[in-house]
Amino acid sequence: MSGQELAAAHKIPTHEGVRRAMAKIADILPKTPLLPLEVDSVTIWCKAEMLQPIGAFKIRGAWHRLSDLNEEERARGVVGVSSGNHAQGVAWAAKKLGIAATIVMPSNAPRMKLEATKALGADVVLYDRATQSRDEIAAVLIAKSGATLVHAFGDPWVIEGQGTAGIEITEQLKGFGLSGPDMIISCCGGGGLASGLALACPDADIAIVEPEGWDDIIRSLDAGKILPVKDLNHPTYCDALQTPQTYPVNFDILQSRVSQGVSVTTDEVATAMRVVFEKLHLVVEPGGAVALAAVLAGKIQPKNVTAITLSGGNVDRDVFVKLLAQAA
Amino acid sequence: MSGQELAAAHKIPTHEGVRRAMAKIADILPKTPLLPLEVDSVTIWCKAEMLQPIGAFKIRGAWHRLSDLNEEERARGVVGVSSGNHAQGVAWAAKKLGIAATIVMPSNAPRMKLEATKALGADVVLYDRATQSRDEIAAVLIAKSGATLVHAFGDPWVIEGQGTAGIEITEQLKGFGLSGPDMIISCCGGGGLASGLALACPDADIAIVEPEGWDDIIRSLDAGKILPVKDLNHPTYCDALQTPQTYPVNFDILQSRVSQGVSVTTDEVATAMRVVFEKLHLVVEPGGAVALAAVLAGKIQPKNVTAITLSGGNVDRDVFVKLLAQAA
Repeated sequence: MSGQELAAAHKIPTHEGVRRAMAKIADILPKTPLLPLEVDSVTIWCKAEMLQPIGAFKIRGAWHRLSDLNEEERARGVVGVSSGNHAQGVAWAAKKLGIAATIVMPSNAPRMKLEATKALGADVVLYDRATQSRDEIAAVLIAKSGATLVHAFGDPWVIEGQGTAGIEITEQLKGFGLSGPDMIISCCGGGGLASGLALACPDADIAIVEPEGWDDIIRSLDAGKILPVKDLNHPTYCDALQTPQTYPVNFDILQSRVSQGVSVTTDEVATAMRVVFEKLHLVVEPGGAVALAAVLAGKIQPKNVTAITLSGGNVDRDVFVKLLAQAA
Repeated sequence: MSGQELAAAHKIPTHEGVRRAMAKIADILPKTPLLPLEVDSVTIWCKAEMLQPIGAFKIRGAWHRLSDLNEEERARGVVGVSSGNHAQGVAWAAKKLGIAATIVMPSNAPRMKLEATKALGADVVLYDRATQSRDEIAAVLIAKSGATLVHAFGDPWVIEGQGTAGIEITEQLKGFGLSGPDMIISCCGGGGLASGLALACPDADIAIVEPEGWDDIIRSLDAGKILPVKDLNHPTYCDALQTPQTYPVNFDILQSRVSQGVSVTTDEVATAMRVVFEKLHLVVEPGGAVALAAVLAGKIQPKNVTAITLSGGNVDRDVFVKLLAQAA
């Protein structure tokens, strides 16, 4: 049993936990905007998480986790595993709290994410996504230092923290005179955000979207058990959603709450990035655009008051220009 | 004397007017985010006006102007002159209030701006920027219909409305525990936004930035009288700032308040657009990026708590890709 799984065994993520995380996060982070977007005369409410200080929602879970560490734990430091957004979230929270952070990142992570993580003062340890296990590397580091593992999605604090986006969505809709959300469409990598949103909004339909080839959670929900991705080398621009397989703590929540899951192609992602560029004037990274991509492609039908995640904006310039130029 | 000048003769824009506009705008538009950006270890507070529903600050002045029209005036309709952002502001407000709107736009305005203005239900009348006077075309339309002219910058309501961005900046800084702003750096076309911000924030230094070749207000302030641009054919990507010359109502305010004015090159604008893309994950149009461009180029030194305008994000995809790719 890994350190993370031990932690999960001691703490169950809950709606009350999401609310406690919200109180902490409201003290340090302004609400990100919830922006209306008309799609075929239906308003889709877009949660603009690329406007977080690190450019992604991951700052929420990292802050909830690290700020809950006691003094002794803080002194031993933290270890994160991440393709880049969680890395920056952990590094940001660690810097603010004066905690030493080591992040295990894939060597082919976007340059922008690698540089931003280092700039926040974290030690970065690189691994090869196709041949090495990031969890094993993290385990070795933790065995040496006694640091706390802050897993990118399978950590109960991280799940509760990500869920705070759902509390904000609910409050912001109320500010617009609306109830709901009736449906939340979430991007899905390891399932940290989707399971957090499910806890945050117990009355909402939860739909998940994964990139083509990385649809392990959709397949897992169909099979009724956790399955890994079929091909770790399947090419995708959605680096933020490249997780080999989900964790039981996420799977259990998603199994009881997800009403539908679909995967989207690179072309569909590029179209969503273009629409966000033209209509909302925001930069969304490929992995952050999959929820909108599913709506635009007609793969998910919005239901009354529907909110979607635009989960991050950390995309290298050459990739953004390429996808924007090729988008339909 | 034009219709606009007649109106200006009857109403003087004031700080109290900006506050009255703010109360009206707060009812229908959420505050746009004020985002911190570190430049050489100094925090610059960026007002993200591309997140307005029309993608630019112009919605503020248009709403203040149109919502102040009486029933008889509303029945006769409105006429606007604009390269695109004011056009969308007037069209948006007119649609919301059930007023007929005609907009005089240059034939070489960005496609995105032309299409968005039409999509909001306005009648668009095109003119040639180099050879025709938009003010004359508007005057003919008004003589026929008795419509009210809503000038893009030389209208006292428009000035007060644009100034509401300054009220929001002040309130948002207070929310971050800061006083100020001590300095506001504003993009400057006709001077509507800059003069509104000056009225809104009587204690702030006001700095203005124009694009190279379209620096008529800087030259006018130096000369102590209103001068036109030297060459109406000078190429620029900053279509939002291409105004032939300012109006007395703007000039009088700017003359008493502007502490410095600088112009920026296309390369400097492209660099600012790249920084906004990478660090803030926002799409800023060339004309909306000039204030940051001046800071990044070292042409204006920030002063204690400094806020800048990122005034709009309505840029065609090919132009954005080109400038982003070529940026240093």
